[in-house]
Amino acid sequence: MPASPIDSALYRDLFHDAEVGTLFTDSAEIRAMMLVEGALAKAQAAHGLIPDTAAAAIDRAAREVQIDPAALSKATGQNAVVVPAFVAAFRAAMNAPEHAQYLHWGATSQDIMDTALVLRLARLLAIQQDRLTTLARALGTLAGAHAELPMAGRTYGQVATPTTFGAVAASWGAPLLRHLDRLAELKPRLLQVSLSGAAGTLSMMGDHGPGIRAALAQALNLGDPQASWHSTRDGVAEFSGWLTLVTGTLGKIGEDLLVMTQTGIQEITLGTGGSSSTMPQKTNPVLPSLLVALARQTNALNAAIQGAALHRQQRDGAAWMVEWLSLPQICIASARALAAATEIAKGLDPVPGRMRAGIDDGPGLIYAEALSFALAGIMPRPEAQQAVKALCQEAAATGTPLAALAAARWPEAAPPGLFTPEAQLGLAPAEARAFAKAARAL
Amino acid sequence: MPASPIDSALYRDLFHDAEVGTLFTDSAEIRAMMLVEGALAKAQAAHGLIPDTAAAAIDRAAREVQIDPAALSKATGQNAVVVPAFVAAFRAAMNAPEHAQYLHWGATSQDIMDTALVLRLARLLAIQQDRLTTLARALGTLAGAHAELPMAGRTYGQVATPTTFGAVAASWGAPLLRHLDRLAELKPRLLQVSLSGAAGTLSMMGDHGPGIRAALAQALNLGDPQASWHSTRDGVAEFSGWLTLVTGTLGKIGEDLLVMTQTGIQEITLGTGGSSSTMPQKTNPVLPSLLVALARQTNALNAAIQGAALHRQQRDGAAWMVEWLSLPQICIASARALAAATEIAKGLDPVPGRMRAGIDDGPGLIYAEALSFALAGIMPRPEAQQAVKALCQEAAATGTPLAALAAARWPEAAPPGLFTPEAQLGLAPAEARAFAKAARAL
Amino acid sequence: MPASPIDSALYRDLFHDAEVGTLFTDSAEIRAMMLVEGALAKAQAAHGLIPDTAAAAIDRAAREVQIDPAALSKATGQNAVVVPAFVAAFRAAMNAPEHAQYLHWGATSQDIMDTALVLRLARLLAIQQDRLTTLARALGTLAGAHAELPMAGRTYGQVATPTTFGAVAASWGAPLLRHLDRLAELKPRLLQVSLSGAAGTLSMMGDHGPGIRAALAQALNLGDPQASWHSTRDGVAEFSGWLTLVTGTLGKIGEDLLVMTQTGIQEITLGTGGSSSTMPQKTNPVLPSLLVALARQTNALNAAIQGAALHRQQRDGAAWMVEWLSLPQICIASARALAAATEIAKGLDPVPGRMRAGIDDGPGLIYAEALSFALAGIMPRPEAQQAVKALCQEAAATGTPLAALAAARWPEAAPPGLFTPEAQLGLAPAEARAFAKAARAL
Amino acid sequence: MPASPIDSALYRDLFHDAEVGTLFTDSAEIRAMMLVEGALAKAQAAHGLIPDTAAAAIDRAAREVQIDPAALSKATGQNAVVVPAFVAAFRAAMNAPEHAQYLHWGATSQDIMDTALVLRLARLLAIQQDRLTTLARALGTLAGAHAELPMAGRTYGQVATPTTFGAVAASWGAPLLRHLDRLAELKPRLLQVSLSGAAGTLSMMGDHGPGIRAALAQALNLGDPQASWHSTRDGVAEFSGWLTLVTGTLGKIGEDLLVMTQTGIQEITLGTGGSSSTMPQKTNPVLPSLLVALARQTNALNAAIQGAALHRQQRDGAAWMVEWLSLPQICIASARALAAATEIAKGLDPVPGRMRAGIDDGPGLIYAEALSFALAGIMPRPEAQQAVKALCQEAAATGTPLAALAAARWPEAAPPGLFTPEAQLGLAPAEARAFAKAARAL
Repeated sequence: MPASPIDSALYRDLFHDAEVGTLFTDSAEIRAMMLVEGALAKAQAAHGLIPDTAAAAIDRAAREVQIDPAALSKATGQNAVVVPAFVAAFRAAMNAPEHAQYLHWGATSQDIMDTALVLRLARLLAIQQDRLTTLARALGTLAGAHAELPMAGRTYGQVATPTTFGAVAASWGAPLLRHLDRLAELKPRLLQVSLSGAAGTLSMMGDHGPGIRAALAQALNLGDPQASWHSTRDGVAEFSGWLTLVTGTLGKIGEDLLVMTQTGIQEITLGTGGSSSTMPQKTNPVLPSLLVALARQTNALNAAIQGAALHRQQRDGAAWMVEWLSLPQICIASARALAAATEIAKGLDPVPGRMRAGIDDGPGLIYAEALSFALAGIMPRPEAQQAVKALCQEAAATGTPLAALAAARWPEAAPPGLFTPEAQLGLAPAEARAFAKAARAL
Repeated sequence: MPASPIDSALYRDLFHDAEVGTLFTDSAEIRAMMLVEGALAKAQAAHGLIPDTAAAAIDRAAREVQIDPAALSKATGQNAVVVPAFVAAFRAAMNAPEHAQYLHWGATSQDIMDTALVLRLARLLAIQQDRLTTLARALGTLAGAHAELPMAGRTYGQVATPTTFGAVAASWGAPLLRHLDRLAELKPRLLQVSLSGAAGTLSMMGDHGPGIRAALAQALNLGDPQASWHSTRDGVAEFSGWLTLVTGTLGKIGEDLLVMTQTGIQEITLGTGGSSSTMPQKTNPVLPSLLVALARQTNALNAAIQGAALHRQQRDGAAWMVEWLSLPQICIASARALAAATEIAKGLDPVPGRMRAGIDDGPGLIYAEALSFALAGIMPRPEAQQAVKALCQEAAATGTPLAALAAARWPEAAPPGLFTPEAQLGLAPAEARAFAKAARAL
Repeated sequence: MPASPIDSALYRDLFHDAEVGTLFTDSAEIRAMMLVEGALAKAQAAHGLIPDTAAAAIDRAAREVQIDPAALSKATGQNAVVVPAFVAAFRAAMNAPEHAQYLHWGATSQDIMDTALVLRLARLLAIQQDRLTTLARALGTLAGAHAELPMAGRTYGQVATPTTFGAVAASWGAPLLRHLDRLAELKPRLLQVSLSGAAGTLSMMGDHGPGIRAALAQALNLGDPQASWHSTRDGVAEFSGWLTLVTGTLGKIGEDLLVMTQTGIQEITLGTGGSSSTMPQKTNPVLPSLLVALARQTNALNAAIQGAALHRQQRDGAAWMVEWLSLPQICIASARALAAATEIAKGLDPVPGRMRAGIDDGPGLIYAEALSFALAGIMPRPEAQQAVKALCQEAAATGTPLAALAAARWPEAAPPGLFTPEAQLGLAPAEARAFAKAARAL
Repeated sequence: MPASPIDSALYRDLFHDAEVGTLFTDSAEIRAMMLVEGALAKAQAAHGLIPDTAAAAIDRAAREVQIDPAALSKATGQNAVVVPAFVAAFRAAMNAPEHAQYLHWGATSQDIMDTALVLRLARLLAIQQDRLTTLARALGTLAGAHAELPMAGRTYGQVATPTTFGAVAASWGAPLLRHLDRLAELKPRLLQVSLSGAAGTLSMMGDHGPGIRAALAQALNLGDPQASWHSTRDGVAEFSGWLTLVTGTLGKIGEDLLVMTQTGIQEITLGTGGSSSTMPQKTNPVLPSLLVALARQTNALNAAIQGAALHRQQRDGAAWMVEWLSLPQICIASARALAAATEIAKGLDPVPGRMRAGIDDGPGLIYAEALSFALAGIMPRPEAQQAVKALCQEAAATGTPLAALAAARWPEAAPPGLFTPEAQLGLAPAEARAFAKAARAL
């Protein structure tokens, strides 16, 4: 019953990501909550808060018990949170009330749900780090291989000056390196247990609270926040913002590819393409379109999550629900986008002839800036700019190449060598190679 | 595999809406596409474009054939759209290639998917109209029953002047009447077939295009747009905006209830409430929280859909995908919100004593404006305002009611009758009754 | 001090709209509030609530008094609303305390500010209606003049089948006709006075409230809501949504023009273009970029306004402030966008040769669908599609036009006449002419 | 002509921030661009690209020349960017064409505008760091002073368990410490010069490009990106996301204060409050409302900026304009929010009696969890929870305090000492003091 096509059997090969999606299934959520409750019981027993035998029984059950998500649904609908029904079902399944009564001792729903979420985000972050690295390397390979392949740089869609395809690939990849840095920075802020009890004071654990929280963190290989973050959601919001940055970077790649693959431009071939239901010739740039769509969607949902930072008092059901409605989607969407971008990066081929054609379009106006600087040797630069501007209009109107017009007027100042892409690449090859090197070093 | 908790077995009783959700299942989408293809074939046969026997076979198959969504997923992932695989599977299932070849004759993917969507939106609109009407009536009942029940009007959270609970209920319901008007207005713009072929010109249907489109519209009980709307998405965007208005109105009800049910205020009891996993006393206002969450979520996704109105050229895969990612969610979310609001409206009870306590909080400052106007009979109004302001400060500081202070100073101008809510209800009862009447008339 | 570049002297010719901007100046706001207070006083005198002489004095002062916005700023900062300081300044400027005391009698800040806003929105709606009409006509002229001018229809940026530039212009304009309908529908919901007193009950006007509100509405040529809309903001939110629809439609025009004016495509010339600070050849598509930017910005701010529909209790300062922060910007942005789109529509010229070149790009794959239908006369359609698909790949690989390959293989089924745009325009010319006619009829 | 009320003389004391606003005036933008051009000329002369005498003249002029923003407006409207007109005006004002021709040598508009923006953001970051520190300290003072002041913890608006006001203040402040860390991390990614020439290759500076860029960075005390960031906007987007996190944190403080200052709750008094135009008693929580409004607005505009990360090719006019339309507003809004929050933090007073009343509301259900754990000593915990749940219902129905009911039933397990806030504060005091210490250490 897909509200989101990510959850659809029909669209799953388009939108879903199997590896990351598995972190957000109902059973994964229940499983993670069980692990948290099990670890909590052990930490509490170690501090003498609950009996060792009870903790052992809870911990064992946490690995063995099966709980049917659908069986919890009705109570979840009434309570807004799944934990009351989950705890009841867990206790019942333990079939040992003398131990089961110590389950969830002094914890609150948010402790269990948030910690169970973070447990899975830890896995997600590792996946995303891998994927970012893989994608950066794939783009680095492109950047290195095509560091000197000339193509037209474009601003406002108009030919500007030459650049290289390697430099373009480097511009796609460079933000990924920064996203990896950002990921490393936010990780310790995000990957923390939540354990603060009913209203954030952990009062039912007495003096043992801090020790138990530290032990829980250690057991789950997460950080210890040393305070409640029930109502301070900046860690979640920061992560959502990071996902938005990542998909934004990938969306820019998608936008570039959509214009580069246009009929009549065709500077790039993608390894794959989509068929039409009626047009036999079509190979649509499906994956670039997907990158743009996922970026737009992630951005929209990020706004919901940022808004949920206005979390009222010690717990705000509405703000918290907004996180549930949005976060899994953008986790999966970003993972799908990373996979799609990598598939693109590994499959695409630049088309040097078409890139050259983009530079050498009829009048060759791409050399106008270079000509204006060359003329600045024989006249003041403002005059040179005006002269070249006039010449460009003549070239456009007559179709005579700018190079020919310039050679006729200023044979010495405008030698033919000026009007070659190779003479005008500037730092493009160097930037491409520098990125390739940085990506290899990941 | 829930990216959205609406699709989760665990959370379905909280977020999902069974009646509306069924419109957006994979099988519902496929079924709707089959109906469209069947109706199209019949319309084409009626105009002589394809053989009658083929149309009959296609139409019959459209009612009988079963297509497994999962079997279409791989090709959908490659093509971005489901239709190429769907048409191939449909043809194969017909087991009659001589007829099957006429399936999807001259149509394009977007024709089929958009018309299949609209077919289901027609059903959705009917449901939403019913629910809006039901909710408006339930609020009308509250407004009528409590038209004269005094409670404190609050601005910025501060007690302002008395109003009645009926007037508050009327303010919740009044926008719904306008939403029904808006729905009636947008309906003919939204509920239209799409049939325009590969790039919007319907060229493969020759001169029969307009006639076939009209016939298809008639067969499906939808409107005939008489033009392509492949790339003009204002109908979809308008509908998304309407859903946002509706959930915004319901979110405001949720916000009001969250403050009215606060411990210490408790002017309202909800028939239902959520339990805590650790606090025995809690009956959390789950449904009001849900209304707020669904409104925030719908608003966020609406921004994605509005952005998709920037649909490039004759078809923009990225923009179109954004609609898929967002529209079903807000259709279901809005339906859930309407159901939840109705459950609230039918279950809630005002608590007259608490409402009175909200008016008669210690110093009774709620009568300050009334006193200032009463004094305006014996002194200029600006002076009266200053005098009452000073008296309010005295009342707040000493705890002596404003009424007592005023009676001591201006016994004639400030009679005790002034300091009763009944004397200060203004138009509240009349507005409540007017809304109750309008709701009954729906 | 521009927080918004719309308010900047530097950027005003890019972003600002002089005609609409003048509605949102500080002095325009104050002037409008004065008109409201003046009309209110007269309506109250007519109902015997305040003395005739006071009303006459207030009304006269409302036309004559000058109030310096900056002088109200400090108190506005303290009160969040401008009205307390405005009323005090107005009273002081009247220099007749015996009359001035009757100013703002029984009204609240929101009554005055909202009514003063609506007064200006009434003017804005008239301007927008004019501009929409002008733009629709300009696009209608283009659609009519170029109804048969062939160009390549594109989906996913790829050449699909031929269409005409007139049909494209019609697709740009058709939503505008619907926006005009929507405007007519929302207008009576938006253009209403607000007069409901401190907490929505108008209690200080006794039995005269409804009559005074009706009289005020009549005097200001606005509607009478017959209820409070202090906290029901659907009228404002609906209008914001409409502005978003309008700018979305214009943004789509901008996106199309950005790709159509690209170097190497150049199907359109704009009458105007932007210069670069360093590249003499550049004529950047400034206005299309502006349309896209204004659409994105309006969409973002619309989300803020929709969120403000969650307006708590009888007045919610935070939600109301959000409206102030967002609404004027999108009013001006939409007006600027309409002006820019009209400038574009009047200045642009299609370039028939480039459009033809877009169709006749090397292999001529644009005719693939037509060929497949032609072949469906001699073989089953699925086979025809496969055969044409193979031929397209051959054409792309070899550069031999599809027409030549087809003629060699199926000389009778694939006559040369098939491979001309004129044979494949479908309904494009008719849709173009129909829109042109509808636009002329506005 | 305020499109934004931040730019309004009327609303400036509410929305504007004088210190930060001054960074975004037209003249500040022009001044910053002049400094960039001056520093660029000197760096170029040092590398022999332009004559020393020209550089000296340009640098001197950059400090002396006055350029009228309004005089650049018309050309800015045509070019979309201000730089062509700015360079022309700068050259004319130099009155020395032989030197002026070397101005802006090989740079592009985006280099100058982005570097001029970053120069001002450097100042902004310093201000924000100061304000965050000041606010954190003010909250730390509150947290320390009231570490043991009991108040009701609330979840879903319902009383949960006791906490302390110090712990609440700590929860407001704790994210600020993380925001300071985030600021330190993003700073080197944001504060970088842009110098990459027409299409990102810096081709007109020959081999000297990297050296000149490094020298420019050093001269302006900014970082050297060693690559083009014309089209990779993650630095700007990250900063926008950070502003959203900051205002979100402050918005949460605002939301809490709005509920805490409600009539009937009144746990907090603000030092300041807003007056009503008609209600003498009102002291509206203006600044908390403002915090919420600025957070909502910043979130909306952040979505626009994140969307602008989809920046097409080597320069995307539309995406760039969206940044201009949004970024200054949220810079000023966040600064205003920090100032307002600090004013609140320094002016507010908790009202211990009201806080106590919030805990000791009639039936004292706040102790239900504690009682259930106390009873867990004499019966299994699930039974204890059920027993307390039943007792809570009895207490609520009869008004008899839970403590009395419990004492009657389980005199030993439920001693009176259990039902005091002091016995139930848990970690609240310790968390408050820990934050106070951390804030003092800033």
